[in-house]
Amino acid sequence: MILAAYDRIAPHSIYTPLLSSPFLDRIAKRRLWVKAECLQHTGSFKFRGGWSAISALKPKDRARGVITFSSGNHAQGIASAAAHHDVSATIIMPSDSPDVKIKNTKDLGAKVILYNRKTEDRNLIETEVNPDKSLLLIKPYDDHNVIAGQGSVGIEIAAQAKTRNIKKADVLVCSGGGGLASGIALSLEQLNPNMLVRTAEPDKFDDIKKSLKSGKIECNKHTSGSVCDAVLTLCPGDITFPILKRLCGAGFSVSDEEALRAMVLAFEQLRIVVEPGGAVALAAALFHGKELNNEDVIVVATGGNVDRKIFQNALIKYGK
Amino acid sequence: MILAAYDRIAPHSIYTPLLSSPFLDRIAKRRLWVKAECLQHTGSFKFRGGWSAISALKPKDRARGVITFSSGNHAQGIASAAAHHDVSATIIMPSDSPDVKIKNTKDLGAKVILYNRKTEDRNLIETEVNPDKSLLLIKPYDDHNVIAGQGSVGIEIAAQAKTRNIKKADVLVCSGGGGLASGIALSLEQLNPNMLVRTAEPDKFDDIKKSLKSGKIECNKHTSGSVCDAVLTLCPGDITFPILKRLCGAGFSVSDEEALRAMVLAFEQLRIVVEPGGAVALAAALFHGKELNNEDVIVVATGGNVDRKIFQNALIKYGK
Repeated sequence: MILAAYDRIAPHSIYTPLLSSPFLDRIAKRRLWVKAECLQHTGSFKFRGGWSAISALKPKDRARGVITFSSGNHAQGIASAAAHHDVSATIIMPSDSPDVKIKNTKDLGAKVILYNRKTEDRNLIETEVNPDKSLLLIKPYDDHNVIAGQGSVGIEIAAQAKTRNIKKADVLVCSGGGGLASGIALSLEQLNPNMLVRTAEPDKFDDIKKSLKSGKIECNKHTSGSVCDAVLTLCPGDITFPILKRLCGAGFSVSDEEALRAMVLAFEQLRIVVEPGGAVALAAALFHGKELNNEDVIVVATGGNVDRKIFQNALIKYGK
Repeated sequence: MILAAYDRIAPHSIYTPLLSSPFLDRIAKRRLWVKAECLQHTGSFKFRGGWSAISALKPKDRARGVITFSSGNHAQGIASAAAHHDVSATIIMPSDSPDVKIKNTKDLGAKVILYNRKTEDRNLIETEVNPDKSLLLIKPYDDHNVIAGQGSVGIEIAAQAKTRNIKKADVLVCSGGGGLASGIALSLEQLNPNMLVRTAEPDKFDDIKKSLKSGKIECNKHTSGSVCDAVLTLCPGDITFPILKRLCGAGFSVSDEEALRAMVLAFEQLRIVVEPGGAVALAAALFHGKELNNEDVIVVATGGNVDRKIFQNALIKYGK
């Protein structure tokens, strides 16, 4: 499924570079490689899963239109792919999503419905908006075609590691519901089993880390309260968790401050714009090196849709 | 020479992506493609020319060590390649270069000599530092191996254009002494003669634009006075100008404000960090569309070494 998804995605996606910097290597005290998915269309890897799911729809389902939930990156991925395939898209987004994500999703042609994630239940809103289930629900991570699309990142990582003679590495992946991490893990299981996928999350939103430790699905206590908006999913998914459990090492969690520092270092040393939630894996590699197993570490910078003011303030606070 | 240089460079350089954004297309009113050389090692295309020149040295020349002039991007390119090849490097830099460029050049292991570009002549300083010419001078653009290295950008542009079905385009290149523009023009002359290379410079530092118009080498009146530090070279080179004259269309010039606006749009829409001098080609494509000939325009974002405060201030002033 991943190879088939990649055949559909590759002609339309960016083959994102694997970046490095001697200055980041010094901080990490190892060889550090950054897969820059913030450069992907719509500013995150979610373009891949969105394209995979929409392009796999049968003609009669395309005519129905789709609906989904998202804090903004899956939203833009679905909106972009839906527009290209002439499918109508309705997206339920939390009202405290970054402005840039809400605006871009609308500008890509999707219908956006906002809800308050502290007081409202997005599942109930979906029932209200879509009472007869005429719109097809594409879940942001617990969907086989979405996971297969995200897995295409793993195909590229395996190829790029080979040309750089990286035989063995920890592969750190920013994780919300675990769609990207499980997709990459499935790819690398086949293409390079010496790579160990490990999830990275914000402190207090480390549901996957806790679940991997206990061996069963654990959920977060809160749904908001971190600057890393992209990865505040409540629990790992029913499809993703068994994959993560079978294939991944122990998870990481980092503070908001570490994520913001990593974001500023990516600006200074790699010249890429990463959002806080897209920088948690880089933060883990830079600041939690003692928990790593290998001399090489590959991190996925998953997204770059950051509000200007958050970025400015981080530059002022943490820039050199 | 370009193909031979690329064979030496490619195993060590980043194959930089060709990015695009539907939102930038709307502003430009055409299909706009950005070759993101700001993601190259050392943060600019100058890594390629530096690597090409240093890797071409004979063993006895490597033992001599090299010297060069640069406001900072060629400096880092030479410093990085020299360190890798175990060659000592001395770089003469203007004291008003961005701090980030001076610091990185030193951190890469080069010896840096600062001079005041308003009152001192860098050629005289070179004579003082290198009286017996024991250090080999590698000029920043008027050097065959440097131009051949920069030409490798053209090889990648031709390949990337082909996969995106771009048959014909204006190719806009930020230009100081014209090393990159002439290298790309030579590549595309062979690989796709329907591509028209055109230089982009800051207003008042448009020596190439004026020279292309008059047909003979014209120089700028000033050596400083623009935020676009990377492209304030006084005159086109003796080697580069005849190539530009034979192969390029009319040049562009843009205001500092347009360059800064383009830098902010690249942050918002492409999630890349571009320095002002590296954004002049993007500014020309976005704001001088009437001067373009083709429906497709490819711009090279040449560098991303920008001082944090200049970036912050531009975000505040021009960000959405």
